Amino acid sequence: MQSLQRIVLRQQPLRHLSRYPSNILRKPSQLPTNHLRLIHSTRPGRQNGTATEPQSTSSNPQMSFPCLDALETRTSNLLNKTTIPKQTSGSGPEPSYTSGGYQTFVSPNPLHLDWGGTLPTYFVAYETWGTLNPSKTNAILLQTGLSASSHAHSTPANPSPGWWEKFIGPGPSYALDTDKYFIICTNVIGGCYGSTGPSSPDPASGQPYATKFPIVTLEDMVRAQFTLLDHLGIEKLAASVGSSMGGMQSLASGVLFPERVGKVVSISGCGRSHPYSIAMRFVQRQVLMSDPNWSRGHYYDSIPPHVGMKLAREIATVTYRSGPEWENRFSRRRADASQPPALCPDFLIETYLDHAGEKWCLEYDANSLLYISKAMDLFDLSKGVQDAARDRRDGYETRRNEDVVGGDLEGAQCTLTLPEQAYQEQEDVVGEEKSADVSSSARQPPKDLVAGLAALKNHKVLVIGVESDILFPAWQQREVVDALRQGGNTNVEHVELGEDISMFGHDTFLLDTENVGGPVGRFLQ
Amino acid sequence: MQSLQRIVLRQQPLRHLSRYPSNILRKPSQLPTNHLRLIHSTRPGRQNGTATEPQSTSSNPQMSFPCLDALETRTSNLLNKTTIPKQTSGSGPEPSYTSGGYQTFVSPNPLHLDWGGTLPTYFVAYETWGTLNPSKTNAILLQTGLSASSHAHSTPANPSPGWWEKFIGPGPSYALDTDKYFIICTNVIGGCYGSTGPSSPDPASGQPYATKFPIVTLEDMVRAQFTLLDHLGIEKLAASVGSSMGGMQSLASGVLFPERVGKVVSISGCGRSHPYSIAMRFVQRQVLMSDPNWSRGHYYDSIPPHVGMKLAREIATVTYRSGPEWENRFSRRRADASQPPALCPDFLIETYLDHAGEKWCLEYDANSLLYISKAMDLFDLSKGVQDAARDRRDGYETRRNEDVVGGDLEGAQCTLTLPEQAYQEQEDVVGEEKSADVSSSARQPPKDLVAGLAALKNHKVLVIGVESDILFPAWQQREVVDALRQGGNTNVEHVELGEDISMFGHDTFLLDTENVGGPVGRFLQ
Repeated sequence: MQSLQRIVLRQQPLRHLSRYPSNILRKPSQLPTNHLRLIHSTRPGRQNGTATEPQSTSSNPQMSFPCLDALETRTSNLLNKTTIPKQTSGSGPEPSYTSGGYQTFVSPNPLHLDWGGTLPTYFVAYETWGTLNPSKTNAILLQTGLSASSHAHSTPANPSPGWWEKFIGPGPSYALDTDKYFIICTNVIGGCYGSTGPSSPDPASGQPYATKFPIVTLEDMVRAQFTLLDHLGIEKLAASVGSSMGGMQSLASGVLFPERVGKVVSISGCGRSHPYSIAMRFVQRQVLMSDPNWSRGHYYDSIPPHVGMKLAREIATVTYRSGPEWENRFSRRRADASQPPALCPDFLIETYLDHAGEKWCLEYDANSLLYISKAMDLFDLSKGVQDAARDRRDGYETRRNEDVVGGDLEGAQCTLTLPEQAYQEQEDVVGEEKSADVSSSARQPPKDLVAGLAALKNHKVLVIGVESDILFPAWQQREVVDALRQGGNTNVEHVELGEDISMFGHDTFLLDTENVGGPVGRFLQ
Repeated sequence: MQSLQRIVLRQQPLRHLSRYPSNILRKPSQLPTNHLRLIHSTRPGRQNGTATEPQSTSSNPQMSFPCLDALETRTSNLLNKTTIPKQTSGSGPEPSYTSGGYQTFVSPNPLHLDWGGTLPTYFVAYETWGTLNPSKTNAILLQTGLSASSHAHSTPANPSPGWWEKFIGPGPSYALDTDKYFIICTNVIGGCYGSTGPSSPDPASGQPYATKFPIVTLEDMVRAQFTLLDHLGIEKLAASVGSSMGGMQSLASGVLFPERVGKVVSISGCGRSHPYSIAMRFVQRQVLMSDPNWSRGHYYDSIPPHVGMKLAREIATVTYRSGPEWENRFSRRRADASQPPALCPDFLIETYLDHAGEKWCLEYDANSLLYISKAMDLFDLSKGVQDAARDRRDGYETRRNEDVVGGDLEGAQCTLTLPEQAYQEQEDVVGEEKSADVSSSARQPPKDLVAGLAALKNHKVLVIGVESDILFPAWQQREVVDALRQGGNTNVEHVELGEDISMFGHDTFLLDTENVGGPVGRFLQ
C-alpha cells in the first residue's frame, strides 16, 4: 500500500490532466481489439479477490470483494464436483424445507391448466397428521406459502421439524388439533418437493420440463389438490386453512369448490395480488433470469443459477419482515464496527439478508420459484377474471375434444412479445391522481371482487392480517373482509394484529402461535 | 407446435417414468465432461430467443424470453460498436440528467475523506441561477438526490429542463426565487456528471479510479461543496435546501457548518438511514456487482454492466413510488390482456419498471451508484457517530503530518472480510420484541441524534415528509423534527403530506410544486 506522502509526490501536475469524458459509455472503437479480448477471456480482479488489473500506483487501495470471491468459489466447486457444505438450518424463522417421507398421489389423468397448458400426468406429494374419521368429514387441507414443502410438521417418516411445527398437535391448544382433525398438506403443482413442477420429467421427452413447463395458476394448484381429495375419498373438507400464498389458495378452494369446503381460514393472504407485490416478485424474477447460469431455464445438467437465486431471496427477505422490527433488532449496527465500510455485507441487516440468500440458493429450484411467483401475480378472485378463465378453459376443452391432429392450441403459446411502445407516463397524471379518492381510509373493494367472493356467502370465514406486513398489507385482508361482507356473508371473523402485537410483518404467520395460532384454533373448535 | 392429441399418444407409459430426483442440485459427476463444456461454450436458447435445446417432443411449447433477447442484443451491440439508440426522455417523473454547460471548480488541494481515503485533487461541477448580491449573502445551496446532476434548471448553456425545473424561477411563486436568491447546485463528489468520482482519472495513474476510489460520505460531499463556496467568496449561505439524499446533505451542511448556513430545508430526507432503506440499497448493489460485466468495477474499457444497472434501477423504482398510487394507476392491468402470461414484462407495472431500468442503464455510472448509495447507508448525524468520525479524521491527519514514507495508512484499507459466523437468529427474539415498546406512535428519537442535531438549535428549519413514502417514511422526518425540538429548537416547521394530498411516495419532491414547492417558497420569503 502507498503512503499518502508518496502518492502526492507522484501526482501528475494538474495541467496535464485531461478530463475524463463525462459520457460513461466508452466507445469500444477507442480500444485496441486485443485489449477487449483480454478482458473477456480473463476478467480482472477475479482470482482470490486480488485485482489482476495493472498494479499501478493509485491514490487509494483497491477495494476487495470477499462476497464475490465466495460466489465464484461456489461456482467453481459446483463445476468441479466439490461437495458444497450445507448451510446450518435453525437460523431465520423458516426451518429448512425437508423433503422425503411424503406420500405421492400419481394422477392417471392429465391436468388441463387455466392458460391452456397440459400436464399429461402429475404427482402430488402430501403428508398427513391425525386420523381420518370413518365418515371422512374431519379433513383440513393446509395450504402452503410459495417455497414450502408438504412437511408442515414432523412425522415418523421425517422427524425434522416442519414449517408449522408448533401450530399442529394434539388438543385444543394447537391451531390445528390432530386429536380432532385429519390434516393434509401438499407440495403445490409447480413446486420441487415431490409434486410435478419444472424440474420433473416431461413424459413426452423424459427430460425436465424446464421452461417448457406451462404457466400454472393458484387455481390449477387447488384443482390438483382436489383430485388428491377425490383419491382419498374426501367429499367435503372440514376446513381449508392457509397463510400467505396458502391464504390465497384457501380462499380459492372455497370459491372453486364451495360445496366441498366447510370453514375457510385465510392468513396474511389476499383476494387479488396488488401492484407493489407484483413489482417485488417481478424484480426477483428478472434478477434470477439474468443469471447467465439460468440458461433460460435449461440448467438441470449444469450449474444451477445459485447467484440469481441468492439475490432473489435477499430481495424477497426484505419484503418478509418490517422496517420497525429491523429498526429494533439491527438498527444501524455494523457487523464489525472496527473495520472501514465495505460494499460486501457490512451492516448487520446486510449480513442477515446475505445469510437468508445463502441458505436458500441451492435448496429450491429456480424454475419453481419463477412459475409459482408468477402464479401469485396472476391471482385475482374477481368475478370477471374467473369468468374469463372459465371461458378460456371451455375453449381449450372444445378444441381438445375436436380432432385437431396437427392443429395448434393457440392459447398454449406461453409467451408474450414486449409492447412496441415503452410505458409512457401520462402528462397530467398528477392532476388525475388528486381528483381520485383512493386514500386508504376510503378504499372500497372492487364490485367485481365482491361478486367473485360471493361464492363464499354462506361459509364461516376467518381472515387474519398483520399491520406490519408490507408484502400482503393489512388493507388487502380488510378488502377480503369487506368484499365478503358486502356480498352478504354475516359469518366473517377478522383479526388484525397491530404493530404493538407483532412487528414481524409477513413472517408473523410462521412465528406467532399465540396471536395467529390462537384465533385459528378457536375458530376451528 | 404439437396438438394435445399427438402429445398424449406419444406419452410414455407411466410405469416407465423414473421419478426425477427431488434434490435439485445435480452432481456434475453424473454428466459427461464434454456435455458440460458444450453448455458453457454455447448456452442453450440464446440465439434470437429460439431455444437451441434439443427440439424434442414436449407436452407444451418452450416459453420465449424477448426481454432477455433484448439484453443480449444490447450487449452484442456494445461489443460490436453499434450505436445504441437513446431512450426517449420525458417519460417518468425525472427528466434525463443532462450534463454539459456546467462550470467546474478545480480544487488545488486534496480532499481528505471521513474514512481515510484521499482525493489528491478534485473537481466540483456546478451550475447557478439568479445573481449573487454584492454582499454575497443571498446564496442558496441546492442539494441533489442520488443520481442527479447539477442541472436543476435549464440554462442558456444547457436549455434542457432540469430536475427541479418548475421549482426554480423568478418571483415569489417559485420555491426558489431567482429574483431574490443566487441558487447553486453541484454534482456530488462520487458522481459522474462532472465532479470527481469513480469514473474520473486517478492523478496517480491516469486511469479511472474505478474501485480504487475511496469510500466517501455525505459529509465528505458537503465539505467539497463548501470549498466551492470558499472559491465563490460566499461566507454564509442564506439557506441550504435539498430533497432525498439532498435532504440529508442539507441537514449535514448545517450540522458541519452551523455558522455558514442560514435556514435549512430538508425534504423527504432523514437524520440517519434506517435498516429498510439500507436493505433496499444493499440488494441493488449486490445485483449490480453480480453482473459479470461489472468486473469488480473495472469496466471502463469494456462493456458496462448495463444488465445489473437496469435491474438495480428497477428495484430502486419500486421504492420511489407507493402502493396506493400504483393501485390507482396500474392496478392489475396487463400490457396485452389478449396474450397468455409471460415471465418477461407482462403486467403494466412490470413494463413501467422495465422502462425505468432501460432509461437509466447506460445513463449513469455503475460505480457512482455503488459509492453514493453506500454513502447514504453510512449517513447518521448522531453525536457519537460525528465524534467518532472526527477522531478518525484527526488520526489520519496526524499520520499524514508525520513522515510516513513507506508506511501504511491503516484506515484507508477500504475492505471488510465477511464475519466468520453467519448471522444467527436469536432463539428468544419473539419474546424480546414483544417486551420492547417500539411501536411507531411511541417512537422517540435517540438521545444521540438529539445531541447530534443540537448544532442546529438556533436555525430556522423546515422539514417536509410524505406519508406515502416507503423509502424515507414519514416517521423519519418526524424523528428529525422531534430531535430538533428536544434539542431546544423552537423554530422548526414540519409539513407532512397525507395520502389524500400525495400518493407519489418518495417521488413527490420531484412532482408537487404546490405542496412541496409552496411551503419551501413561503419558508424562504
